[in-house]
Amino acid sequence: MSNVNLEQALLIAKTALEKGREMKFHPLTVIVLDAGGQTKTLLREDNCSILRQDIAMGKAWGALGMGFGGRELARRAEQMPNFFVALNAMSGGKMVPVPGGVLIRNAEGQIIGSVGITGDTSINDEICAVAGITAAGLVADTGDK
Amino acid sequence: MSNVNLEQALLIAKTALEKGREMKFHPLTVIVLDAGGQTKTLLREDNCSILRQDIAMGKAWGALGMGFGGRELARRAEQMPNFFVALNAMSGGKMVPVPGGVLIRNAEGQIIGSVGITGDTSINDEICAVAGITAAGLVADTGDK
Amino acid sequence: MSNVNLEQALLIAKTALEKGREMKFHPLTVIVLDAGGQTKTLLREDNCSILRQDIAMGKAWGALGMGFGGRELARRAEQMPNFFVALNAMSGGKMVPVPGGVLIRNAEGQIIGSVGITGDTSINDEICAVAGITAAGLVADTGDK
Amino acid sequence: MSNVNLEQALLIAKTALEKGREMKFHPLTVIVLDAGGQTKTLLREDNCSILRQDIAMGKAWGALGMGFGGRELARRAEQMPNFFVALNAMSGGKMVPVPGGVLIRNAEGQIIGSVGITGDTSINDEICAVAGITAAGLVADTGDK
Repeated sequence: MSNVNLEQALLIAKTALEKGREMKFHPLTVIVLDAGGQTKTLLREDNCSILRQDIAMGKAWGALGMGFGGRELARRAEQMPNFFVALNAMSGGKMVPVPGGVLIRNAEGQIIGSVGITGDTSINDEICAVAGITAAGLVADTGDK
Repeated sequence: MSNVNLEQALLIAKTALEKGREMKFHPLTVIVLDAGGQTKTLLREDNCSILRQDIAMGKAWGALGMGFGGRELARRAEQMPNFFVALNAMSGGKMVPVPGGVLIRNAEGQIIGSVGITGDTSINDEICAVAGITAAGLVADTGDK
Repeated sequence: MSNVNLEQALLIAKTALEKGREMKFHPLTVIVLDAGGQTKTLLREDNCSILRQDIAMGKAWGALGMGFGGRELARRAEQMPNFFVALNAMSGGKMVPVPGGVLIRNAEGQIIGSVGITGDTSINDEICAVAGITAAGLVADTGDK
Repeated sequence: MSNVNLEQALLIAKTALEKGREMKFHPLTVIVLDAGGQTKTLLREDNCSILRQDIAMGKAWGALGMGFGGRELARRAEQMPNFFVALNAMSGGKMVPVPGGVLIRNAEGQIIGSVGITGDTSINDEICAVAGITAAGLVADTGDK
């Protein structure tokens, strides 16, 4: 299993926050998980509301948990709501099936981690995650192919 | 981060209960949280049913957790039910997206706490929360702008 | 079942905090439960650390849960540590067997609620709880008879 | 309530990890919480074992929860084991009473957050936390005065 390392994770997270400030988005919280679901880094901007770190975790963990980006998770949650209720219960609430949960893939297409980000609209959150992953020379998988 | 203090919190809570009695509402339970989500005060009127303190907490905490008043949370829960199922699971049930969860803002517009109140209809509950926050010289954000 | 009412509870809690300030104790958090274990009121002074509300609840709830004041609970926890580990697990951690959990009795000796208070040493916390209960014309049961 | 901001938190965390590498300590995980117990940042070095983020959280949260640095918590846990069993249960296991949980104070002595760090011995972990807090121009409170 290849894994995003701390240096890459920190570059991803910091770039995502910079992108948000540049776009004048609301304050963001970003988390980067490795392929084993462990947190590599979390950055929470000042004035984020107090559930943001859990939502960021839910987006990142949900994407990694199922192996799909947030957009695909959102489509599936729409089609199979009862399944997602079950996934939520089994994961202790760590499953937020919306955009802004983005898989990190390496050049070979392997999943090496994921990003979860929240604070603005889900679509805007996702823009920042993609900017961060791209800046690290890695491939962002939002769930739309 | 500024925070509501105990003196303000107690004035808010007592005024809210007085408003309810004046309007002949059902017995109310009111909670005031600071900006970090910690309880500053809770007052539970005699003859409140036994889930009221948890509902009051859920309204106050949900508003603070997402940074929106209860009316905006209610609209979003309507539009994104799957997301709110997830928020509920991740917060251990501390997310009640209905009116009566009201953000407390200072003159500069910063969130310095929140009120959650329950016992009568959600709309009536909210009237009492707003009365309390206003009496303390602070700004009530119900989620309608 | 007789029950402490909100007016009595608020008098107990406010008097307890005033006693603490008069004695120059650390900032205190005080909770008053009714005989059914429901919160009547909670007051948390500014600058209390963030676990204080749970500790106050654990002192009040533990006393009520077993029907003994905190001093007697402390003696029993000393003698039967494994039993208290079990009580803690079964109550979800709401069992803090130390002084500062004080039963509220009426003139007939019936338990009508309890106080939990924390912030200074357990013995000092207890002084404030007793001052509050006495001010309300009720009988404080610390577990020492 | 003043709060550590993200810029300070990130400087503390990065300096702590650099100190660890300079001292040739084992890989470290460091977390910085604000005064309300919310995570500001978490950095987890490559090759940390998978419980490290929870231990770091428990050190930081325990210190903040009680308002004492980890050394003082360790002494109290030694003297009052039953009380700490209770604290552990009530906090969902977020109470790790050992060195490496360090309060962050500002120049006025107010608690504005805390650091939790783990990976090497508790004493070595603590050296890194203190280095980070000092680098940010803030005051480290380890629980020894």
